[in-house]
Amino acid sequence: MTLGRRLVAEAVGTALLVAAVIGSGIMAARLAGGDGATALLANTLATGGALIALILTFGPISGAHFNPIVSATLAARRELPAGDAVQYAVVQIAGGFGGAVLANLMFDLDAVTWSTTPRHGFPLLLSEAVATFGLVGVVIAVSRTRPSVAPFAVAAYIVAAYWFTAAPSFANPAVTIARAASDTFAGIRPGDVPGFIGAQLVGGAAAAALFGWLFARDA
Amino acid sequence: MTLGRRLVAEAVGTALLVAAVIGSGIMAARLAGGDGATALLANTLATGGALIALILTFGPISGAHFNPIVSATLAARRELPAGDAVQYAVVQIAGGFGGAVLANLMFDLDAVTWSTTPRHGFPLLLSEAVATFGLVGVVIAVSRTRPSVAPFAVAAYIVAAYWFTAAPSFANPAVTIARAASDTFAGIRPGDVPGFIGAQLVGGAAAAALFGWLFARDA
Amino acid sequence: MTLGRRLVAEAVGTALLVAAVIGSGIMAARLAGGDGATALLANTLATGGALIALILTFGPISGAHFNPIVSATLAARRELPAGDAVQYAVVQIAGGFGGAVLANLMFDLDAVTWSTTPRHGFPLLLSEAVATFGLVGVVIAVSRTRPSVAPFAVAAYIVAAYWFTAAPSFANPAVTIARAASDTFAGIRPGDVPGFIGAQLVGGAAAAALFGWLFARDA
Amino acid sequence: MTLGRRLVAEAVGTALLVAAVIGSGIMAARLAGGDGATALLANTLATGGALIALILTFGPISGAHFNPIVSATLAARRELPAGDAVQYAVVQIAGGFGGAVLANLMFDLDAVTWSTTPRHGFPLLLSEAVATFGLVGVVIAVSRTRPSVAPFAVAAYIVAAYWFTAAPSFANPAVTIARAASDTFAGIRPGDVPGFIGAQLVGGAAAAALFGWLFARDA
Repeated sequence: MTLGRRLVAEAVGTALLVAAVIGSGIMAARLAGGDGATALLANTLATGGALIALILTFGPISGAHFNPIVSATLAARRELPAGDAVQYAVVQIAGGFGGAVLANLMFDLDAVTWSTTPRHGFPLLLSEAVATFGLVGVVIAVSRTRPSVAPFAVAAYIVAAYWFTAAPSFANPAVTIARAASDTFAGIRPGDVPGFIGAQLVGGAAAAALFGWLFARDA
Repeated sequence: MTLGRRLVAEAVGTALLVAAVIGSGIMAARLAGGDGATALLANTLATGGALIALILTFGPISGAHFNPIVSATLAARRELPAGDAVQYAVVQIAGGFGGAVLANLMFDLDAVTWSTTPRHGFPLLLSEAVATFGLVGVVIAVSRTRPSVAPFAVAAYIVAAYWFTAAPSFANPAVTIARAASDTFAGIRPGDVPGFIGAQLVGGAAAAALFGWLFARDA
Repeated sequence: MTLGRRLVAEAVGTALLVAAVIGSGIMAARLAGGDGATALLANTLATGGALIALILTFGPISGAHFNPIVSATLAARRELPAGDAVQYAVVQIAGGFGGAVLANLMFDLDAVTWSTTPRHGFPLLLSEAVATFGLVGVVIAVSRTRPSVAPFAVAAYIVAAYWFTAAPSFANPAVTIARAASDTFAGIRPGDVPGFIGAQLVGGAAAAALFGWLFARDA
Repeated sequence: MTLGRRLVAEAVGTALLVAAVIGSGIMAARLAGGDGATALLANTLATGGALIALILTFGPISGAHFNPIVSATLAARRELPAGDAVQYAVVQIAGGFGGAVLANLMFDLDAVTWSTTPRHGFPLLLSEAVATFGLVGVVIAVSRTRPSVAPFAVAAYIVAAYWFTAAPSFANPAVTIARAASDTFAGIRPGDVPGFIGAQLVGGAAAAALFGWLFARDA
């Protein structure tokens, strides 16, 4: 598959994923009123469904990373050229931003509204690191042992991570940045984005080390 | 498989699908009272379950399109004769209408009650185009690369699309028309149907172009 | 596999299925208070999970019918000896009754409490016939074309049928009888059981005719 | 795979599983306020997702038992050396405890807070025995006949068991002990832990006998 097609797949896939994450959050919050648990259930279900469908759709083209941490992990494992990983990250971030705009427009909001939701502090950063640790572990394991179930494994993991961490977690810098551009249910204040990405990098690196050892080919 | 059997499969399958979409909406709204988020969660779960079961059941007979946009897409890709696609669309619309009647009768309502729910305006039409864009993309991709998971991919996508677009979306003209015939949770005012179908055609055509290029066989 | 083992599998499997249906209904109603929609969501999720797990578990032994209508359908299709189908039905009904007792005891109720919930009238009987029509269609189709996904197809179908018919439907005489023995969320008044079973037989026979034709081997 | 790697996999996997069980319970209870049904729905969904993802991830390394009862069952069936099963149990309990600490820290609670939730009495112990009976049956069956679907079968079963027994059930001594260390939604008073484990042993032994006979290789 040509790099051009793969980059288009990553951009469009990440845009649709972010539109699903943010759009379902808006819809859920509007319908649920103040009932945060029901709203997050709906947001979770929609995100899980989108992940299954989009990874199945774009996986055969680009691998369906939709996530710079995943692309970087595969580059570190020499399963993706480093230059490709950089380009993947650029189009993931651009596509994710486009998806946030799309979600805002579908719900009759301004194209970009910077989020005012604070998300910081040790518990949240620990949460984000743990969430990313697990996601990278899942990706390394299933891409090595059973790639055909990867869409279901990743979706199931994110469904859990929305709930078991102290902030609905995406373990994904492209999605984190995009969520800053919508002052809605799933938003995060732009100033809190760097901390989240830092925590994601720490968690991802720890997982790459541990799961790299667990699944070493010379084992 | 003879065309007769395929047309019966499309008609019965679309009827059961629409009965599930509308019937579960009625049940959910009755039980949930004014709690729209819980009602839509139930409607989503029932629709997803029906899609998995019905596509697995009728897929081996007719392909289980249940959707004129899907049949037209496959005809444009020369995977279905154009004449068959036209007949598919006719029985899908007729079956869908029958399913709406069936749902109304199961819930002790008049056989047909025209919906009074307005669904129009740019955000909703954009939503419907985006939803159909994604559905057609999913269908082109999985029918080309991994048809055995198509029932799960389509159901997962629609679960997400119920929530990430500004109106619970079906991306399906036959279902849109049928929903006009039940003045209940999932209804749409007959006068708003043409706009929705127009948006579905725009989204579907855009997806056919993009995903046709992404998954071209000479790639 | 000996008939003895198959009968034990049908009895134990139906008992656990009924315990899951009734038990989750009790738990859901206790936790949800008067919120019927959330209670039925929980009952639906638990029933779907139980069906997947139990059909995967007992399928290789006995086929995991857990349902006299399913056993009768397979007997009519000469995929099960008629004498076996009769014995299957007997142990399914006995096992189902045992499961109702077990659920009652787990929730600190009398072992048997006859339900006082009325479930009758044309819309409910139509609902039950439609639900059984679909279930028998799913069973005939997937057992013929893709048996490995049968557990997921049946669970997905019942998840939908809980919501799209006017009474949470099981399309299963053994479960219907067992539900009469627990005056809780999922109960049905004993006097209304024969009508439900009659509707199930009508829906099942219609499906056997239609889907028998659709999936005829000489097609 | 070396025993060292397998033990690390069991420890890390059980830690993440317990963090998901307890963490999602805390999040759900915080968001749901007094709405116990919605809170348990969220807890159920997160637990099911975590089980699918973690069993797929760690299964190829260690078998992904995460549960001393499962390890003991496989040892009794001579599918795991008895000495390994003992070491598995030790790291499962240690890992589970670590997961409880992790969940507490992610939600800004003290690292360990002993639960004050009473869970005792005949109905609850019967529930726990029934839940474990079913889990061990599922594990014996699918590991024998269709191991590739084990992650989905186990997750589906636990989703059901959260609801059909009188206390959200885990059928797992390591998780039971860990839940004592968090005075939150999923907690259990330390003094009630031995009774639960006793009931789990009774249910597990009954299942090992019955399902051992049903799935005997000389059948």
